Amino acid sequence: MARQRAKVDFPVSQVRCYLEPGPIVLVSSALGARRNVMTMGWHTVMEFTPSLVGCVIASSNFSFGLIRRSRACVINLPTTALTDIVVGVGNTSGAEIDKFETFGLTAEPATHVEAPLIAECHASFECRLHDDALVDTYNFFIFEVLKAHVARTPRHPETLHYTGDGQFMVSGKVISRRRLFRPEMLDS
Amino acid sequence: MARQRAKVDFPVSQVRCYLEPGPIVLVSSALGARRNVMTMGWHTVMEFTPSLVGCVIASSNFSFGLIRRSRACVINLPTTALTDIVVGVGNTSGAEIDKFETFGLTAEPATHVEAPLIAECHASFECRLHDDALVDTYNFFIFEVLKAHVARTPRHPETLHYTGDGQFMVSGKVISRRRLFRPEMLDS
Repeated sequence: MARQRAKVDFPVSQVRCYLEPGPIVLVSSALGARRNVMTMGWHTVMEFTPSLVGCVIASSNFSFGLIRRSRACVINLPTTALTDIVVGVGNTSGAEIDKFETFGLTAEPATHVEAPLIAECHASFECRLHDDALVDTYNFFIFEVLKAHVARTPRHPETLHYTGDGQFMVSGKVISRRRLFRPEMLDS
Repeated sequence: MARQRAKVDFPVSQVRCYLEPGPIVLVSSALGARRNVMTMGWHTVMEFTPSLVGCVIASSNFSFGLIRRSRACVINLPTTALTDIVVGVGNTSGAEIDKFETFGLTAEPATHVEAPLIAECHASFECRLHDDALVDTYNFFIFEVLKAHVARTPRHPETLHYTGDGQFMVSGKVISRRRLFRPEMLDS
């Protein structure tokens, strides 16, 4: 079973640090007694403040109904330690199994939403639906991140980036070009 | 000067292979005698067919007007060989300089759009504006990829994934879990 990770609060305006690199994420949701988790790779940061994230959740997913009706979800960031779980979650349906039980994931209560945090992930971002204007046309949800929980170390964990066809690229190595940036484009 | 790369046609329904992993991209644009290139990290695949990509292009960018009025752009994929050029492009404005000249980038004619391909990039995706419903609210453009030009090798080049604060994660290593996927979720 994967290790649970202790988290600290992280500024919601800076979640781009984890999401802009484009990792595959695990999206958890809940509605009444039902809960689910799905893999998701089609997402983008849209704004710093409010902290907005747009993502495509196909209507064929069991999670679609839970998220649309509850108007909330949690976006969780798995590392490569969870690779096989990520694949398992993506290859099964919450209509048939409880994925938390099947894959040994620990659901922890969130602060602002009913959807659970996944304790084994490196980070969890509590999200409320901000704009559903493009849900009918493109299954495109715009969420506001209300609270961010992030493991203290490492700063840049090794993450999975899906290419399709069962293959992932792996990110983890970090290179800095801070010296080449205009000062106003850096955090500090 | 960076090496130019010969390209072959690539199926537009499969551009997720290059964009879903979340790399920083160079977006080129043109309107009459003006042309420009900008860096962009806020993008997501939205559909296979038609091949749709959504992205945020801040209205403060010189490129915003060129793209909005021409209703087109080219999304180019740089590799880590172009890291310093990517940073230079992101730290300057096309209102003041011709970035192709300044950074030694080669503009090649596209087939369907006026915006140029960047010969030094690994791949170039010709895009036409598909839906501007969220441009006024979020600077969010939905493009259709009309034609994809991709270097034959390597299949998965080393790409840059921006974290903010002048730092990039690097992807390149590939891991496969094809054996764990349901057959209908694989390409072949």
